[in-house]
Amino acid sequence: MTPFTPPTQDQLLAIKINAGIGELAQSERFAAAEDDMVEAIVEGVGTFAAGEFAPLNRAGDLEGATLENGVVRLPDGYEAAYQAYVEQGWNAIASPEEFGGQGLPFTLSCNVIENLGAANMAFTLLPMLSVGALEAIEHHGSDAQKAAYMPKLVSGAWSGTMNLTEPQAGSDVGALRSTATPITPDQFGGEHAGKYLIKGQKIFITWGEHDLAENIVHLVLARLPDAPEGSRGISLFLVPKYHLKDDGSLGPRNDLRCVNLEHKLGINASPTCVMSYGDNDECIGELIGAENRGLAAMFTMMNNARINVGSQGVQIAERATQQALAFAAERVQSSRAGSPDKTPVAIIEHPDVRRMLLRMKALTEAARALLYYTTGQVDRGTLGDKAAGMRGDVLVPMIKAWGTDTGIEVASIGVQVHGGMGFVEETGAAQHYRDARIAPIYEGTNGIQAADLVTRKLGFENDEVYARLMADIVRDAAGEPALLALAQDCAAIAKWMGGEASLDDKLAGSVPFCTMSAVAVAGWQMLLQRNAVEKGASPALAATKPVTTRYFLDHIVPEAAGLKPSALSGADLFYALTPEQLTG
Amino acid sequence: MTPFTPPTQDQLLAIKINAGIGELAQSERFAAAEDDMVEAIVEGVGTFAAGEFAPLNRAGDLEGATLENGVVRLPDGYEAAYQAYVEQGWNAIASPEEFGGQGLPFTLSCNVIENLGAANMAFTLLPMLSVGALEAIEHHGSDAQKAAYMPKLVSGAWSGTMNLTEPQAGSDVGALRSTATPITPDQFGGEHAGKYLIKGQKIFITWGEHDLAENIVHLVLARLPDAPEGSRGISLFLVPKYHLKDDGSLGPRNDLRCVNLEHKLGINASPTCVMSYGDNDECIGELIGAENRGLAAMFTMMNNARINVGSQGVQIAERATQQALAFAAERVQSSRAGSPDKTPVAIIEHPDVRRMLLRMKALTEAARALLYYTTGQVDRGTLGDKAAGMRGDVLVPMIKAWGTDTGIEVASIGVQVHGGMGFVEETGAAQHYRDARIAPIYEGTNGIQAADLVTRKLGFENDEVYARLMADIVRDAAGEPALLALAQDCAAIAKWMGGEASLDDKLAGSVPFCTMSAVAVAGWQMLLQRNAVEKGASPALAATKPVTTRYFLDHIVPEAAGLKPSALSGADLFYALTPEQLTG
Repeated sequence: MTPFTPPTQDQLLAIKINAGIGELAQSERFAAAEDDMVEAIVEGVGTFAAGEFAPLNRAGDLEGATLENGVVRLPDGYEAAYQAYVEQGWNAIASPEEFGGQGLPFTLSCNVIENLGAANMAFTLLPMLSVGALEAIEHHGSDAQKAAYMPKLVSGAWSGTMNLTEPQAGSDVGALRSTATPITPDQFGGEHAGKYLIKGQKIFITWGEHDLAENIVHLVLARLPDAPEGSRGISLFLVPKYHLKDDGSLGPRNDLRCVNLEHKLGINASPTCVMSYGDNDECIGELIGAENRGLAAMFTMMNNARINVGSQGVQIAERATQQALAFAAERVQSSRAGSPDKTPVAIIEHPDVRRMLLRMKALTEAARALLYYTTGQVDRGTLGDKAAGMRGDVLVPMIKAWGTDTGIEVASIGVQVHGGMGFVEETGAAQHYRDARIAPIYEGTNGIQAADLVTRKLGFENDEVYARLMADIVRDAAGEPALLALAQDCAAIAKWMGGEASLDDKLAGSVPFCTMSAVAVAGWQMLLQRNAVEKGASPALAATKPVTTRYFLDHIVPEAAGLKPSALSGADLFYALTPEQLTG
Repeated sequence: MTPFTPPTQDQLLAIKINAGIGELAQSERFAAAEDDMVEAIVEGVGTFAAGEFAPLNRAGDLEGATLENGVVRLPDGYEAAYQAYVEQGWNAIASPEEFGGQGLPFTLSCNVIENLGAANMAFTLLPMLSVGALEAIEHHGSDAQKAAYMPKLVSGAWSGTMNLTEPQAGSDVGALRSTATPITPDQFGGEHAGKYLIKGQKIFITWGEHDLAENIVHLVLARLPDAPEGSRGISLFLVPKYHLKDDGSLGPRNDLRCVNLEHKLGINASPTCVMSYGDNDECIGELIGAENRGLAAMFTMMNNARINVGSQGVQIAERATQQALAFAAERVQSSRAGSPDKTPVAIIEHPDVRRMLLRMKALTEAARALLYYTTGQVDRGTLGDKAAGMRGDVLVPMIKAWGTDTGIEVASIGVQVHGGMGFVEETGAAQHYRDARIAPIYEGTNGIQAADLVTRKLGFENDEVYARLMADIVRDAAGEPALLALAQDCAAIAKWMGGEASLDDKLAGSVPFCTMSAVAVAGWQMLLQRNAVEKGASPALAATKPVTTRYFLDHIVPEAAGLKPSALSGADLFYALTPEQLTG
């Protein structure tokens, strides 16, 4: 596996042009995000990620996380690297200042995650998931809960988890069965009055158990007695690994444990835990937010989590591209076709290898452009710009679904560039291909993202939010016929979906439509980057950006246009066969 | 991992309609391939594969092949299953009758490989590679060599390997350095006079060492003293693991050994060996064919090997599709969107899951249709139909490249259908995703396939072979505008490539062009299947074939059309950046 070189210049360009950090810094809230600070963060975390997280990536894959007597062990180096991460303050970038955070834009915390994740995707799930727990407490916790838990979660001294899934409740979170029973004053000598006894088993709990942080704050969805069935009967509970004493220090262990780790295709350094709560009927949790409103509370943090999963597509794509470029520049094999000079050349000189490498680079940069365009809209939403906030919401399924699909595609091409060496694990190319495969699944499958786009977000403001997005692209794409046509196609499909299409028709076309939309927006953002570069925005990228943009607009955009018939096909054909006929 | 159900009906349809087995059986040579015999083979090998090879697939992945003191060990059951395979005569389907084979069409031996490989891809590489060795001896060996080696290779009692690759010579076979030195009459007491001392190291030797067969016949490419440089100085040698005594029985071991096994992404039951020849300067081999003509000899068997690798795409796609269908029919999650009935349903009922499953099924069937169309053309070529033989040659890169790309796509969708369970190894979905990844790489990378198509095969008979293929599609696609347009696009691109396009331009567009061509032919062959089914050719497929064909023509064909700009883009953009600029 090649070392990780942080793509600092491309990140800075995306943060500047696509997120529009300069504009954000003009607000009072984000005034600290001025150029010097932004550069210091992007360069600083890139250096940190390359130096501390990246060298652990291969060992994490080979050795993985292991479970011994309920204790999760990580390979050497993980604990020290996590401590360094906490000590250097990288966890606190976007958190509220009153709890020790820096209060900077989400865009910049995303950059922290992007760099760390490109260096070591499995490891970075630890801080990524902690952010979710932190946001849930920030937005739905009581003042006492915030005071007790926020500072340590903001610093990263404690980590957090999200406990939704149960064996029978995967995508259908509403089907979960874990229970929460109010503790009466006569139980536990009155010590836990007002709290709840949590009982149940949760699966797929990322970093559910480990010793890298001093405490783990589990956010657990469970049902109160007599709660309504389905998703309207779910409440959110804070369940710490170690109880807190009155002075805030750590008390005895709570009744919860990791009973198993999954044997996975990839991200092996990330312990994916089966968690058991209340085996001894002594697992104590606190309600976060209102009773039966747990799912809504969980969903408030879902958008940002989904953006960071979309970022994982960018991360893997970046890493796989660097790996493939380094290999292709070194590996000498055959002379150039048709050349009178029969001297063998580095394979980077062969046309089809060039095609693969340029494709990888263009897809990576375009996914990054879409990522930061999305984070910039989210930050504007935080500042009160409702239109931008809604546009951000519309972009979330695009970056999550297309970003992660892109991660797989680029990682797969990366294996191909390596030839036989790509199939041998020692090069590291195969690890990217394996690691990448989870991102289209978790945090809402890509099918669910596409459904979210067509059944919910497309309808925002009478379909106008999406329509305005495509109109903006049409406006800027006058000189780019392929992009123009794609945006017009997207607008037309959206109109059909908002009109005569049935719900099934919309869902049947949702995934191709989501891909088309994402490619249109990403192509547009690449165009804006290129225009800015041509005006001097990034001398370091002056040579490359016009080429990667051109590739994206001339190759990727037309491919996406080829999905139009699928987006418009309707559902009839999909139901022409019974399940029995289909399974044969 | 779900059990394997052989897709007998779809295979029979493809063998009948796409390969045209009835027509082949009208020839004297293939007269035995009448309906009853064909059905007996397809059903018989399907049952055998499901019963004997499939149950070993997961254990082979988990335990893999291991090397202990030079001996390669396979998990329990592999030896017995291979013996059963040999005893039942499945290895001998298409081999010459004079050496114990059945002399049946290649089409039917491909069906044997398809079934075995769908059951257990890694295991099936053993007979697949043996076929290559057998064909080399059949076409280039002396009568004495044939008599000594063919019968045991035909039965499968002995296996064979192909030794091309060396660390510095992967795709560029001509760069290999292994040597062969003539043995003088005064060496070895005159015993090996006329033979050669082989010396060198070969990598990526599939099933290079094992104990399942009594002997292993290594075909090794090496250089004679004073041979010309490059690919014109390579000769082919037969190097047995055990020497043969004069009576044909096994003598002492030859000086060759497996020194390492690769740690791979997939196909773990297939030992991928580093082979060392002549560590003690006593490795004895015989020349096969003429001096310095080894590469040509190797290439005569390459076409069939490439078809069987394309078949591996079909195999994995079939298996992944069965796995996903079974899971989707069982897994209950959420009610149908918009349904007043809130009862959760099996996920096969959800529109986007239907889309994924139908896509998997349509891609699998279409790749199979292309596979057997190709084998049918090869068989016609064997019968002396030169036009069909050349068409078969043109189809080889299409089935190899697009077939294997399809294997990856379908396996990846299969993981997605499983959701989180797809990323957990125990379901088996992940194994298909890992196993599938090798097929676009070996037996000539897919980039090399595409290069073969545009630089060599497109030019057959002044570009007429390809042009006639597309003209046939245009003729039959009158009622299918998308397919018609795609075939016309392909023809136009071919014309451009045969005319004004530079060599670099052709290579730059080769991969998208190869995909477009393959999809056009596969769509055409699906259309022919559907037409036949509508006329009663397969009552068992009467319901499904029109639906899968429709999906392919309405969804996959337009996507392929989206590649047209890439096929026509030319190479200029790919060389707009220097390697240094590209690698950043």
